[in-house]
Amino acid sequence: MADRKLKYWGWGYEDSGLDADQTKTLLETFAEVFGINPANDGAFPALDAIDLPAARLEAPAKFYGVCTSDTHDRVVHAFGQSQPDSIRIFRGDFAHAPDIIAYPESSEDIQEIYDWAGDKGAAVIPWGAGSSVVGGVTSDVGSGYNGVISVDMGRMNKVLEVDEVSRAARIQGGARGPELEAQLKPHGLTLRHFPQSFEHSTFGGWVATRSGGHFATLYTHIDDLVESTTTVTPVGDIVSRRLPGSGAGPSPDRFMIGSEGALGIITEGWARLQGRPTFKATAGFRFADFFDAARAVRAVSQAGLFPANLRIVDGVELQVNGAGDGSFTLMVVSFESANHPVDTWMALAEECCLDHGGTIDVEWRDNPEAHLQGAVGAWRTAFIRMPYNREQLTPRGILSDTFETAITWDRFEEFYNAIKEATATALREVTGKEGAVSCRFSHVYPDGPAPYFAFHGQANPDAMLEQWQTIKDVASDALIANGGTITHHHAVGRDHQKWYEQQRPGLFGDVLADAKKRLDPANILNPGVIAR
Amino acid sequence: MADRKLKYWGWGYEDSGLDADQTKTLLETFAEVFGINPANDGAFPALDAIDLPAARLEAPAKFYGVCTSDTHDRVVHAFGQSQPDSIRIFRGDFAHAPDIIAYPESSEDIQEIYDWAGDKGAAVIPWGAGSSVVGGVTSDVGSGYNGVISVDMGRMNKVLEVDEVSRAARIQGGARGPELEAQLKPHGLTLRHFPQSFEHSTFGGWVATRSGGHFATLYTHIDDLVESTTTVTPVGDIVSRRLPGSGAGPSPDRFMIGSEGALGIITEGWARLQGRPTFKATAGFRFADFFDAARAVRAVSQAGLFPANLRIVDGVELQVNGAGDGSFTLMVVSFESANHPVDTWMALAEECCLDHGGTIDVEWRDNPEAHLQGAVGAWRTAFIRMPYNREQLTPRGILSDTFETAITWDRFEEFYNAIKEATATALREVTGKEGAVSCRFSHVYPDGPAPYFAFHGQANPDAMLEQWQTIKDVASDALIANGGTITHHHAVGRDHQKWYEQQRPGLFGDVLADAKKRLDPANILNPGVIAR
Repeated sequence: MADRKLKYWGWGYEDSGLDADQTKTLLETFAEVFGINPANDGAFPALDAIDLPAARLEAPAKFYGVCTSDTHDRVVHAFGQSQPDSIRIFRGDFAHAPDIIAYPESSEDIQEIYDWAGDKGAAVIPWGAGSSVVGGVTSDVGSGYNGVISVDMGRMNKVLEVDEVSRAARIQGGARGPELEAQLKPHGLTLRHFPQSFEHSTFGGWVATRSGGHFATLYTHIDDLVESTTTVTPVGDIVSRRLPGSGAGPSPDRFMIGSEGALGIITEGWARLQGRPTFKATAGFRFADFFDAARAVRAVSQAGLFPANLRIVDGVELQVNGAGDGSFTLMVVSFESANHPVDTWMALAEECCLDHGGTIDVEWRDNPEAHLQGAVGAWRTAFIRMPYNREQLTPRGILSDTFETAITWDRFEEFYNAIKEATATALREVTGKEGAVSCRFSHVYPDGPAPYFAFHGQANPDAMLEQWQTIKDVASDALIANGGTITHHHAVGRDHQKWYEQQRPGLFGDVLADAKKRLDPANILNPGVIAR
Repeated sequence: MADRKLKYWGWGYEDSGLDADQTKTLLETFAEVFGINPANDGAFPALDAIDLPAARLEAPAKFYGVCTSDTHDRVVHAFGQSQPDSIRIFRGDFAHAPDIIAYPESSEDIQEIYDWAGDKGAAVIPWGAGSSVVGGVTSDVGSGYNGVISVDMGRMNKVLEVDEVSRAARIQGGARGPELEAQLKPHGLTLRHFPQSFEHSTFGGWVATRSGGHFATLYTHIDDLVESTTTVTPVGDIVSRRLPGSGAGPSPDRFMIGSEGALGIITEGWARLQGRPTFKATAGFRFADFFDAARAVRAVSQAGLFPANLRIVDGVELQVNGAGDGSFTLMVVSFESANHPVDTWMALAEECCLDHGGTIDVEWRDNPEAHLQGAVGAWRTAFIRMPYNREQLTPRGILSDTFETAITWDRFEEFYNAIKEATATALREVTGKEGAVSCRFSHVYPDGPAPYFAFHGQANPDAMLEQWQTIKDVASDALIANGGTITHHHAVGRDHQKWYEQQRPGLFGDVLADAKKRLDPANILNPGVIAR
């Protein structure tokens, strides 16, 4: 139901991906730098080779035009974008595919779908644009349901109102990043929320999953950009009041933000906007020591400067992405403003970096192209392509996954060592080879960073899913045991639920379970996620 | 149980208040500028003249040292600091006074008090330092309970840990502002949360009520300063994980923040700190038109400068406080930093103010005493004394109250006119005289201000409480009808519960009621507030 067809085997549209040279470079880097070689020479199954079970549900006549059982639609909606999703797609494991894909155009459509699902004993999986990397939309709900309906919000994609005075907009839940920004642009405004999934994720999905944008400080999570929310639950709508701030009881928005489709579908909300930045500066610094770089980040983050970007990328991640030789950690700092030149801010940040032993990789002064130069530019180019890597790696038996967390500064160095060591050990024991474990900071707070880890290894193609699960278990256990959060912005989904339940206070879990019973009494919404 | 005795008839300690000259000036201003004259010549009842009912509960032996039925303690804990509280104290209306005041020293003490209250069918009123201006601690719980226990957190007042690296501290719920700042000062750190009630309010109270500090932008509410919380409920503790950020499900902290003692007592939490500011600048600007001043505030707030103060005070409020002649609105702008000079920031803010028609009241350049000069200094002096005014006004039959809200910029001007008109009309109709209605901004967001209104009028001493209620009803109805919030930072309490229930989404009210049943199954905690 889109002009360009979405891939069912990976990121983005069917016509997008790495070209042959990019793939070659990626594989060469893995082989030559890390000794990770293709263990397989497979391909994702063709659509007509997928063994798709017959749909167990048939949409009533009133849903014609809203619902479909089309094969491509069912296959696309069976999985998100996680490593295990990719492996299962490669294996042709579609027994759990949704029976019906619904494309509602209104709250009323959604309510009717809920009623129908309740009658039939079917599960409902809310679907933004399918970019979950944590099994949040994977339609594998177990045997307790008579069918699965994936509710794709793609038709509810409008910016309904723009308030240029307050700088805010009323945005429908199904609006993907580029769609909503295109509708805001004529007003000179932007939401400035750019998760890596921006192209294939939605406003409602961001709110439901507490998405993190690419801004590294201050307004990191979508949480801070939400003025109000409208959530359609099976028992009615939850509509909060649009306000710039309030002290009236526990925040109803903060209760729905992060509910991951378990309590309802966020159909729209008012979001805070900003003027489109006209002043920009980017600088790059190199550090011989990762912890020195981290201390520089801490100094900048505690100085009250609020850079748009404040990121360090370790030597391994730079190597994986062809942006470094492994001998240094890169720090990227950038400032943006719609109002004033940012030189004062950047000069203060630079002072912190130089004080902590940084050397200049890319000079920011009089250099509007800084973000495209040096290691900064090389990493940036790789960053944009990263989501396309996996479809090249899974069929070749190369595991490649990421996980992210947050921790306060006082515990960071010990925490980092523990997580890296646990992950590297698991990778070595499971695959029998070294592999690679890397880290960058995705977001930074005055009281602590959000470290983002990646691991890559040569798997046994026959046991790839199980090998991934073992490594994931070890890394997740380590995050929780060492005091971190199981996720800073990837969300909980099915993949993190076990550790999320360890992390959250037990009585708060009971409160969520009670809320689930109240709002979703037939227990149809995204089973197994958040509240159960 | 304190060295200096707290007043039961007003703000602060018994030895503090307005002196004779200050009182004379206040009364003269009311009389001469606004025609508001004393209608009474009364005095608050002496302690031994208060008709206090016999305590209905007797503390078991194990609570000796923790519990008391002392008369002064019971009288002090019967009311908070609201206008109706003041009137009722003046009338000697202590029939509802708590039977027991408990001063727990640990979570275990609190749990034992809950158990005892549950056994006896008594209500429990969590008490920070009693500064609620919305009936949040007023122990008037109706006839459904066999007694009332006020749980005063004053002995749990320690800063338990300071993390200088992350800039955070673990603070007990009963620590009052000056106590916790004194414990942070040796570390060169500050919470920088300074509500007007700072001296007589607590960390736990701030978290429970979503307190707003004196910083006008960015970190306004305590909400943003909380890393984690520990809440003792009748069924166990809710302990969230200490993290700089997280995306793991709905925030457990945000659910307890604003729960106002209805779900448990917040016994401690980790809070984010900042370096003590060493660079400061303050400027004052005058505007002939209140809305021009508001537009200047909007411009500064949308420029991404994050001033520590960004406040406008209208002509009426300046007149009431002897800081102006009614012909201008005052704007106060200040910047602070522990890291860098703030001149660049202030110069940009100044440009916005001058662009919008402001003229300089107090020059900031090379002027470290700016905050003490001109209308800025005069208003500041009055601001510090404001909490002491009421004890002079109530016995003289002069109504004087404030309420606050928040609204987006697009609706602000119409909203302001509607609220001011409704309040002034009610004041005129109820008292038969003009009185005074004023407005300032207490906090400002890029998408809207938090207007803070005050009203003053000459009451009929025999009907003062009823007259207040009528005006309060009209103003509150107007806030809700015009799209505002019933409170931006004063909290809900008993006084706002009716309008809070109109404001919050109905189904979220049901979720809160379910949480109340789950966490407080005997329904003993702060009855009538937030969840019921």
